[in-house]
Amino acid sequence: MYSREIERLLNAGKIMEGDAVEVLLNGKSHAGILLPKISDVGENVITLKLDNGYNVGLKFAPGMQIKKTGSAGKLSQMPRLIVEKKDLPSIAIISTGGTIGTHIDYKTGGVFMSRTPEEILAMAPELQNFVNLKSLSSPFRTPSEDMTIENWKILAIEVAKQLNDPEIKGVVITHGTDTLHYTASALSFMLTDLGKPVALVGAQKSPDRGSFDGTLNLVCGSWFAAYSDCAEVAIVMHGSDSDDFCYAHRGTKARKMHSTRRDAFRSVNDSPLAKILADGKIEMLNGNFKKRKDGKTIADTEMENSVAILKIYPGSDPKLLEFLVSNGCRGVVLEATGLGHVPTGQGGTDSGVFDKKFNWLPEIQSASEKGVLIAITSQTIYGRVSPSVYRNLRLLFDAGAVFCEDMLTETAYVKLAFTLAHSKNIEEAKKILLENLAGEFNKRLVEKDILE
Amino acid sequence: MYSREIERLLNAGKIMEGDAVEVLLNGKSHAGILLPKISDVGENVITLKLDNGYNVGLKFAPGMQIKKTGSAGKLSQMPRLIVEKKDLPSIAIISTGGTIGTHIDYKTGGVFMSRTPEEILAMAPELQNFVNLKSLSSPFRTPSEDMTIENWKILAIEVAKQLNDPEIKGVVITHGTDTLHYTASALSFMLTDLGKPVALVGAQKSPDRGSFDGTLNLVCGSWFAAYSDCAEVAIVMHGSDSDDFCYAHRGTKARKMHSTRRDAFRSVNDSPLAKILADGKIEMLNGNFKKRKDGKTIADTEMENSVAILKIYPGSDPKLLEFLVSNGCRGVVLEATGLGHVPTGQGGTDSGVFDKKFNWLPEIQSASEKGVLIAITSQTIYGRVSPSVYRNLRLLFDAGAVFCEDMLTETAYVKLAFTLAHSKNIEEAKKILLENLAGEFNKRLVEKDILE
Repeated sequence: MYSREIERLLNAGKIMEGDAVEVLLNGKSHAGILLPKISDVGENVITLKLDNGYNVGLKFAPGMQIKKTGSAGKLSQMPRLIVEKKDLPSIAIISTGGTIGTHIDYKTGGVFMSRTPEEILAMAPELQNFVNLKSLSSPFRTPSEDMTIENWKILAIEVAKQLNDPEIKGVVITHGTDTLHYTASALSFMLTDLGKPVALVGAQKSPDRGSFDGTLNLVCGSWFAAYSDCAEVAIVMHGSDSDDFCYAHRGTKARKMHSTRRDAFRSVNDSPLAKILADGKIEMLNGNFKKRKDGKTIADTEMENSVAILKIYPGSDPKLLEFLVSNGCRGVVLEATGLGHVPTGQGGTDSGVFDKKFNWLPEIQSASEKGVLIAITSQTIYGRVSPSVYRNLRLLFDAGAVFCEDMLTETAYVKLAFTLAHSKNIEEAKKILLENLAGEFNKRLVEKDILE
Repeated sequence: MYSREIERLLNAGKIMEGDAVEVLLNGKSHAGILLPKISDVGENVITLKLDNGYNVGLKFAPGMQIKKTGSAGKLSQMPRLIVEKKDLPSIAIISTGGTIGTHIDYKTGGVFMSRTPEEILAMAPELQNFVNLKSLSSPFRTPSEDMTIENWKILAIEVAKQLNDPEIKGVVITHGTDTLHYTASALSFMLTDLGKPVALVGAQKSPDRGSFDGTLNLVCGSWFAAYSDCAEVAIVMHGSDSDDFCYAHRGTKARKMHSTRRDAFRSVNDSPLAKILADGKIEMLNGNFKKRKDGKTIADTEMENSVAILKIYPGSDPKLLEFLVSNGCRGVVLEATGLGHVPTGQGGTDSGVFDKKFNWLPEIQSASEKGVLIAITSQTIYGRVSPSVYRNLRLLFDAGAVFCEDMLTETAYVKLAFTLAHSKNIEEAKKILLENLAGEFNKRLVEKDILE
């Protein structure tokens, strides 16, 4: 519901949602499309989508005028036509679904999944000012919570296909945010010999809200893909809760750290690759990145599907590991505590309280002997695991577990699937798991640098 | 190995590790006990334990003098005698193990588990200047990774016993850091009608390192227990990576966020309760806390042991839930993605890629029908889950899952064990799970406040 003042202005001008309007307010003029009433702003505020793609909220003040400059009928002709601009660098946009893959219906105010890449593009028409959108494709449409390893493979093949077009400078992928970092890790390992930037972008807020973040992410992701020298898979998302800049996070070193904030994605145990402004200014923040190069990008999509993550906690049951192994699981990431601890009863306990049914060592030993790779990460998220400090960690190591240094649980899971499909035996797999394939280990990690 | 300059000074004075010394350096005098050579400082540095319990590193400079003032034989008479000081407020210290429960042997330089509370106290002799240590006990000694629900019960009973002594103003518990936050949650629920402060303290660095943090944590925890007006279970640990102050975090709203840093513990979705300085200055930071009151504290130790946590990820197998249920599990926390998503294939996927074997809905429905409580939290850690935004979340809710708002996974796990033991049926359990029993929900949570 609008306030009485706003209602009166709209009724007087016979203005409907979706109409093009010019608003005069406090001596300034604002031109754009009147969006449906947004629920999370006051009833005294109208929201326009400006020509540059941004939304602006305008609060009623005495003297406010609203003039209709075009009718909804004409302006709801989405998708807009895409004009080829050969003088600008070419990029490909691949849309996969998620909140950024939705659009607001200008007639009904409802939010719908975008069915065409053009509908996605409509949220940021200004892209056409600085890039040539040579390709818009959508190999599948799914919210990221429903993604599986199969989706990663299809996506990797599509990305490689686009990157191997000599005219394409980089690729932007629109994606749901829930598992964006898993996909970013998967592409980091699957796209071997990567020579161009790949930017994954999403939205934390839906387009019916004034706080919609998808536009800036898409814009900054496109700058990164077209203009940066960084040939890495990066997550490009808001760098602050304001709508002011984005970070490009290395695909293997980032994580969604908030359920709703726009700056939910954070680099973990590494600094972001770059800071990107909406005007195209790109500041590299991490001295350690792969540069553009010539050559063909290969989508190496061999993945072992039978991998799992188990979280460790007081009272966690080692029978879960036994169950996975007996069901053919070939690799398990144990998200352990602290430096990589799991309950063993052998860390110096002298109380007689520890029940040996909670001891994970026999199951880890047994799994290893059956050729199942056990990888250890930490649920602290930040920091490093290491078997060298305490005796019970050494016992885990001796039982065959691989301590995954400063690698994130999510990255370790993806890499385990990749590694097991690329090794002849468990010893080779253990070796590959600890090789730095895609920046998943930060050898320069200093304790002081990493916790924000 | 010391440098030649240091070796020469020590040899000249026939000074051994463990000796009391006075060091003159750059015109200043430092008195303390010479510690064994610490591995992580330079070879040109000696480390003294000062009388106030702190360690100080002194780097060689021309003109440095080292005088022996007491021999190792006399000074290694640990444990020191504890003197009763009736004019100071009384606290109880309960030691349980962990890194803070270790001490350095002044003769060998080795790190050993402290066998007596007096040995723990030796790391912070200055405690006796501001509190009367009325009770020092140790119901068990175990590193925190080996703790189980049984340990929580024993500890709760010991804490209640101490708190119910009218002279005791508060309790300090020394504990390993890996699962410190699980124990803090458990005590928060188990100690009903809590009327005095309970401070859990640990150490991230062992006492053979110059960066040992246990002293400050124990000192600040003791100030909090004896002098604060906050009758809550709190984790009192370093507030920065420097040795300058501690935070008291609410027991149900904190988490270990780094494997090694001294300020690894962070309040999540809430502000810390208080900031505490070594000199006893306590600044309350959170307006919402329970105050001291009279009355008996009850250790309500009824807990359901058959509870579990499962992490959700792309490709996660719902058969794990089936396995747990068929093995008698009565409650499971699903650590979901984003707003509480699990794979269902019903979030708008139109690709034909989603394999229905990854659909968690049937298992959740089936578990709920069998009376198993399914609780949903988010692996984003920060933020809130909610079933109201997307259709597939609503389906989860309709299948019986409880969305745990802004409650941490670890807290939800502990609360599930507590709740199932305190309810007659699943409907009552669902209701209790969403009641704010111990500050586990932050009703004042504002999105902007919470991600550091």
